[in-house]
Amino acid sequence: MNLILTEAAEALRNAQKLVLTAHENPDGDAIGSTLGLMHVLRDMGKEVRVFIDDDIPSNFSILPGVDQIERPTEKMTADLLVVLDTAPDRIGRTGELTDAPILNIDHHISNDGEGRRLYLDAARAATCEIVYELAKELRVPFTKESAMCIYTGIATDCGFFSFANTKPFTMRAAAELMEYGVEPNIISEAMEQKTYTVVKAMSKALDTMEIFHGGQAVGLFLDEGLSAEIESTEGFIDMVRVIEGVDVALLLKCKEKDVCRASMRSKGTDVSKIATSFGGGGHIRAAGCTLNMPFAQAKATIIDAINRAMDGEQQG
Amino acid sequence: MNLILTEAAEALRNAQKLVLTAHENPDGDAIGSTLGLMHVLRDMGKEVRVFIDDDIPSNFSILPGVDQIERPTEKMTADLLVVLDTAPDRIGRTGELTDAPILNIDHHISNDGEGRRLYLDAARAATCEIVYELAKELRVPFTKESAMCIYTGIATDCGFFSFANTKPFTMRAAAELMEYGVEPNIISEAMEQKTYTVVKAMSKALDTMEIFHGGQAVGLFLDEGLSAEIESTEGFIDMVRVIEGVDVALLLKCKEKDVCRASMRSKGTDVSKIATSFGGGGHIRAAGCTLNMPFAQAKATIIDAINRAMDGEQQG
Repeated sequence: MNLILTEAAEALRNAQKLVLTAHENPDGDAIGSTLGLMHVLRDMGKEVRVFIDDDIPSNFSILPGVDQIERPTEKMTADLLVVLDTAPDRIGRTGELTDAPILNIDHHISNDGEGRRLYLDAARAATCEIVYELAKELRVPFTKESAMCIYTGIATDCGFFSFANTKPFTMRAAAELMEYGVEPNIISEAMEQKTYTVVKAMSKALDTMEIFHGGQAVGLFLDEGLSAEIESTEGFIDMVRVIEGVDVALLLKCKEKDVCRASMRSKGTDVSKIATSFGGGGHIRAAGCTLNMPFAQAKATIIDAINRAMDGEQQG
Repeated sequence: MNLILTEAAEALRNAQKLVLTAHENPDGDAIGSTLGLMHVLRDMGKEVRVFIDDDIPSNFSILPGVDQIERPTEKMTADLLVVLDTAPDRIGRTGELTDAPILNIDHHISNDGEGRRLYLDAARAATCEIVYELAKELRVPFTKESAMCIYTGIATDCGFFSFANTKPFTMRAAAELMEYGVEPNIISEAMEQKTYTVVKAMSKALDTMEIFHGGQAVGLFLDEGLSAEIESTEGFIDMVRVIEGVDVALLLKCKEKDVCRASMRSKGTDVSKIATSFGGGGHIRAAGCTLNMPFAQAKATIIDAINRAMDGEQQG
């Protein structure tokens, strides 16, 4: 059942004891929206607990209330379970924790809302933009605490105001939150923090950089040894997709022996076609696939496929 | 002579033939403010030429009118020479090009304005924020062309809304400019573009990364061979200053044989003190100095100085 904003606000107003949750592998918007709404609802005098069934990355330790996020362990009663920034299928054990009715708040167009009350606004850059609107609808003034959390979710989900989802609404919401004491440099410095291990891994990954298709394609190639060393490759492809003249950027890594994973980004070439031809998928500009073969063969195979796709695009 | 905004607008309104210029080694704010003001003044029916005495980085090729920026070569007459984003001592030969009276528009607090008409607002994150205000004062509606140029200067001077100089005013100005057709992702993608050579150089520089002082300091060490290979080290220190737990980040490179340049960034330790002790200077959080000695000796010397400064800070 799809709600309108006033109905979502009404559901929050009518509950006294609330459990808030968001998706596993939580990002800035998952953490910011649960903590932001927690502050808003507590400012209304409500009893609120936040559960996320995963570790919270240390980058978020600057957010007020982050130490109050709990891991779900035992059953509890509540008037309302508010599921933020995801459908309820990605909230881990939190769903089993309470029988409370669900209010789902999200900005992902893929959320179908079947069998539950859903407030969805896919035009918003972040679920935190919706929490910002709900606070205004509920007439709860922002505090530095709520503003910091809501701002962080907005800023991280729109790449610090650099992605296509950044709208005038996004900028004006951020402006208002800054007036409640958010310091953008404090948030951005915390978010850009990386461990030494990650920077060292990025350095090793960059050493494998190769360009092909006359400089219009670039790849990072993490063989079995290097892949085993590197915990996460998040953000690695961003370092090379920015190279002038590059259309397709590739990251190839080994998941296990003879199982290689290719991630592709593009500025024009339809990389989802390439991914689909190997049983993978994605979008025109971001796609991935798995190649069940030794690394050297996977490397030759995916480079060949990208070359052929780019030749085709140029002819077509 | 310091002007107020209406007086600066009046000076622009009273001139019919204008030359606009900005500093050498032009950045997004220099280019954005001259081109942005060019569009605004042309929309008023004025005759405007833009001169910058330097190459324009290819990142800015997306800006409307960038192809009309000229290098100063011959004398010309004008009613007004508008110097943007700098005092007139950094505009190269453009100053010799015309005898027109100067109107100086800047946001750098260091601009003393001696002997010329200056509109200075050091509270603004970018000279482009002032151009935005001038367009409104002159009642010239923005166009997509002027908005893209002005937005670019604002976004680049505040690190895409992530530096401490980002204010609610900044966000709201950007919001308004987006309503005239600025696509933030188009601008950010153009700005983050790097050449293959630069990314390759970053990769080699990262390979030299060493941590010291128990992980609280990190350095990149470009010896004579590597320094000769690398054209620009802009942004290199940013890759390592974001490491968790790091207070001081260092980049050491060779300018020539036995002449080494150290650049330092810090989150707490006063690096200007370290720089000053070697005859350099800067601010608490960003400073640099030259060490006239072989690379290996320079490396040992600066690491020792940083270690001692950090020990002192911890004791003090």
